[in-house]
Amino acid sequence: MRDIDPSLRREIESLERFLKVKPLYFDFDEGVFVWLDTRLIPFREVYRRTSDYRRVARAIVDMEIRGAPAIGVAAAYALALAAAEAASRGGEGFIEALSEARREIESTRPTAYNLFWATARVYGAVSEAFRRSGVDAAVRAGLEEATRIYVEDVRGNVEIGRVGARLLESGDTVLTHCNTGALATAGFGTALGVIRYAWMEGKDIRVITTETRPVLQGARLNVWELRKEGIPFKLVVDSAVGLIMSRGMVSKAIVGADRIVSTGHTANKIGTYMVAMAASRHGVPFYVAAPASTFQPDAGPEAIVIEERSPDEVRGVISEAGYVRITLGDVEAYNPSFDVTPPELITAFITDRGVIEPPFDVNIRRTLED
Amino acid sequence: MRDIDPSLRREIESLERFLKVKPLYFDFDEGVFVWLDTRLIPFREVYRRTSDYRRVARAIVDMEIRGAPAIGVAAAYALALAAAEAASRGGEGFIEALSEARREIESTRPTAYNLFWATARVYGAVSEAFRRSGVDAAVRAGLEEATRIYVEDVRGNVEIGRVGARLLESGDTVLTHCNTGALATAGFGTALGVIRYAWMEGKDIRVITTETRPVLQGARLNVWELRKEGIPFKLVVDSAVGLIMSRGMVSKAIVGADRIVSTGHTANKIGTYMVAMAASRHGVPFYVAAPASTFQPDAGPEAIVIEERSPDEVRGVISEAGYVRITLGDVEAYNPSFDVTPPELITAFITDRGVIEPPFDVNIRRTLED
Repeated sequence: MRDIDPSLRREIESLERFLKVKPLYFDFDEGVFVWLDTRLIPFREVYRRTSDYRRVARAIVDMEIRGAPAIGVAAAYALALAAAEAASRGGEGFIEALSEARREIESTRPTAYNLFWATARVYGAVSEAFRRSGVDAAVRAGLEEATRIYVEDVRGNVEIGRVGARLLESGDTVLTHCNTGALATAGFGTALGVIRYAWMEGKDIRVITTETRPVLQGARLNVWELRKEGIPFKLVVDSAVGLIMSRGMVSKAIVGADRIVSTGHTANKIGTYMVAMAASRHGVPFYVAAPASTFQPDAGPEAIVIEERSPDEVRGVISEAGYVRITLGDVEAYNPSFDVTPPELITAFITDRGVIEPPFDVNIRRTLED
Repeated sequence: MRDIDPSLRREIESLERFLKVKPLYFDFDEGVFVWLDTRLIPFREVYRRTSDYRRVARAIVDMEIRGAPAIGVAAAYALALAAAEAASRGGEGFIEALSEARREIESTRPTAYNLFWATARVYGAVSEAFRRSGVDAAVRAGLEEATRIYVEDVRGNVEIGRVGARLLESGDTVLTHCNTGALATAGFGTALGVIRYAWMEGKDIRVITTETRPVLQGARLNVWELRKEGIPFKLVVDSAVGLIMSRGMVSKAIVGADRIVSTGHTANKIGTYMVAMAASRHGVPFYVAAPASTFQPDAGPEAIVIEERSPDEVRGVISEAGYVRITLGDVEAYNPSFDVTPPELITAFITDRGVIEPPFDVNIRRTLED
């Protein structure tokens, strides 16, 4: 459970300098998967370690690990750990045990596309290696495939950062919404990665982060990440963005994306659309940073379905004292998780394949087909 | 401390049917001022009663009573109670005691214009009656003047409601931001008063209220008032307004105002500007409801200064468990209390002198000069 392709090890080492904040990784010396319990951030920094895939699955269910790419990586390593466990009982029933573990892992978040994509990749690599070369090769193949998923995500994010940092100048105050950093990805982040890259280049950047109700990813996660990096920032409530932009306090806005369709319509955390409206009105460039895999060039805006989450998120907050109610427990609350920002409010997309400028309907397709 | 002009008593009685929710009033039978402790709403309904003006002053300091008109009424009754207390010691030192009480009351919220205006009115009435007719007349004059301030505010609000309700139709879903109801005024409310009036007329109205971070006036106060009235409503986070309007879920938006200048630029609770932007973009009529006294036809937009409040409001929330932190206690937070909505985003003003439509620079002056 320790040996992987040396070139993969070297690639991890080469990315290390971008991972000052490292909330998710495999400890090859100990053979355990390690993650930061994001529920306790920013109040307590508790790293969890396990070689038991069931514990990783529970961490996904309990939201100790959050963010689609982070969940994908965790699921991939969970299945790799399951392969090692199955192998310890010899070849007998190996594939059955692996399949059962895969089902368990996939049941943690049945709507998470990244999770299924990641488990399919690891399952394919493990089962093929098992068929060809037996259990030891299968275990190694699982760990390598999970690590490839991890490395690809981090490398893609660093590339997004490199591409996007060119758009930021010393002296910029950058507004961001929701967490798109190391705590949402395998590492480094997308929109926050752009800010991070510019900062690492020595640019004098300041950040304004919204708190991002209802789940407060800004107040809890961005605050922690920005402080770790030493990037100066201010926290504001979501509804202050209009005033702040009207006062000329923001040079650029950068957000992430959950899904970008052929026209450039962008589904992202609730509130993104209002930030984009305010930016457009006040001439503040509004950038969306996302890997190529977030684009769905074959889907139109009608394909975007708005997920509704529990009204308890609106009826309360996650605080230092855990979840507390801010209103009556039986109040009717509507809690759409995402909104859709139309392309005319977006200045450009920042991707690991370069910057995509308007007209998006032409340029998204062109960039992704290259 | 019980006798006032019978016509004033009758006027209070005539307004009674508009005061189903009555968080602030003088109990003439007992000679005490009564108020609902808004800090505990919506979790607990605790009415406080006192004949001691110092206790009323403390209620203002501690934010048991909030909202400029409500503070004005409380300060007026506090000074009336102080006059009664001073009178109980006979005429000796009456004016000195009254002046001292006035200073104490005015020191509770040194920036509250309404408070100074109210204490000046009561002080003037009391001191003149004292000079002319002695202590008993002075006490009665104080109570009558405070009651006039109370009645004028409620009557003005009911008139705003009557005027504004004509703009609402059965089937409308009305979005509102912050609390502008009985809990912010002497009674009935302004923007929420319009909704209340339409509901009392039998119109089938639904409400969407934002939670209104940071102080959560929507989640705490609107929720309580709307439930008391039986008006169906949904609670949303502030940043959901864009999505909700884009989905056609809102027919009209109505908000209150802290200050409206000659051009129609409107200072109101932080986030109002973003609601107005979203409404304009989606063709949702956006109304501002406020009494004539909120307009400053001689001031331009440059006169509006944005008050900044404690960063602790952003760093935490008022919850069922009291104030709890949502982020680290030493995070730098920016907490502007108000923003400015420009006139081009406002459909009309709803006032106790009628509806004011564009061009506002002409029509505000014309309406207020009538």
